[in-house]
Amino acid sequence: MIKNSKKLITIVGGGNIGSSWALVFLLHGYRVSIYDKNYEVQSKSKKSIKRGLNLFTESNNLDSKKIKNILSRINYFKDLKEALYDTKYVIEAINENLKDKINVFKDISQNVDKDIVIASSSSFIPISKISEKTINKCRCLNLHPGNPPYLLKFAEIVPSTYTSKKALDQTKSLLKSIKLHPIILKKEIDGFVFNRLQGALLKEAYSLINDDIVSASDIDLLVTNGLGLRWAVLGPFETIDLNTKG
Amino acid sequence: MIKNSKKLITIVGGGNIGSSWALVFLLHGYRVSIYDKNYEVQSKSKKSIKRGLNLFTESNNLDSKKIKNILSRINYFKDLKEALYDTKYVIEAINENLKDKINVFKDISQNVDKDIVIASSSSFIPISKISEKTINKCRCLNLHPGNPPYLLKFAEIVPSTYTSKKALDQTKSLLKSIKLHPIILKKEIDGFVFNRLQGALLKEAYSLINDDIVSASDIDLLVTNGLGLRWAVLGPFETIDLNTKG
Repeated sequence: MIKNSKKLITIVGGGNIGSSWALVFLLHGYRVSIYDKNYEVQSKSKKSIKRGLNLFTESNNLDSKKIKNILSRINYFKDLKEALYDTKYVIEAINENLKDKINVFKDISQNVDKDIVIASSSSFIPISKISEKTINKCRCLNLHPGNPPYLLKFAEIVPSTYTSKKALDQTKSLLKSIKLHPIILKKEIDGFVFNRLQGALLKEAYSLINDDIVSASDIDLLVTNGLGLRWAVLGPFETIDLNTKG
Repeated sequence: MIKNSKKLITIVGGGNIGSSWALVFLLHGYRVSIYDKNYEVQSKSKKSIKRGLNLFTESNNLDSKKIKNILSRINYFKDLKEALYDTKYVIEAINENLKDKINVFKDISQNVDKDIVIASSSSFIPISKISEKTINKCRCLNLHPGNPPYLLKFAEIVPSTYTSKKALDQTKSLLKSIKLHPIILKKEIDGFVFNRLQGALLKEAYSLINDDIVSASDIDLLVTNGLGLRWAVLGPFETIDLNTKG
């Protein structure tokens, strides 16, 4: 047992998103269990977490001793029950397949206390569908991270009509503890806010290119040197406020 | 006469946009003449340029001597002809009124050599309309800066069907000399690319708020901590490329 560590988070699925989640939790002192039956995925995940830690050696003042300590807090499992033992929060991050998600949520719910929150990282499948066969589904919600969540500082929380306030509150606290802004969607929609806003800009960009107004590379330049630069500091509504004030 | 200085830029209109343009050119060694008949506007402009210079004391290593030198390179005029004397490039930045712009373009063209480029800062009125009464209108184009152009590193260049390649090339070189990326629009459209992309995202944001999905403040948080952060580094098409490569 590792001493002085925070509670355990279980991540189901060791791909890109699951490994990125793991990295964020590790950097903030949590213990992490990753469940993935595929040994190759596990092995890739370990490598990507080590690579990810290198990004933070400077900002987080990490030396080899600290890195060793961080890596000692993660464990990989091929057995779901073992991965869920003693867990305090479960994040599902498997492929975007509804049937698979329904089944894995059911399996998870059979192996953890009925109050443990089970969150899906899906970027578009609503939790009301995913939690169809889950025991005590009021503890379920969508928790869609930015990609990667160790660089983009937010995650979207999307409840179903029956998600409990307690599950919502726990999720908000958890996000704040890993320095991510919780963005609350009040109800389920097709696609969540991040992708809808991104999609709206992209749709307009494609139409400008199709009409032969501007090149894709000039749009990238304009966004990185203009819109993105502004929006990294001031949101769209803060911008309007500022313009109104002159 | 100031020695060792670059060529003279004339800015017609001393409001926010005109003063911001002036600041950028001053920071890059140019001499600047500002034409504005309104003494109050002139006085506000002087203050805003001094305030603007304070933003750059650290990054540009400015001491009081350097600031004095920079300010010695700007002059204000109530007489258009005087403001245009010896100018190498003219930027119009008056209010967004077509009639006023048509007249000021005509006046400018009567007082400078026929090869001097005359550019409009308008964010949406096409140069083909503005240059209606201009002498030798093939030297005219839209040059729409980011706001403010000393923080957003681009400007949109929009030619009319008769804008000369020479005027375009000169404008591109000029922008590069003040470290702004030229974004070339191949033809005139209603509104330019920056505002159309910004508007597309805003429209989607308003619709999400109207449908009671998410709050305006959460959208601001999501954009500053997510989309903007990403887009300040990677444009929308670079993002797609990266996603495709996995």
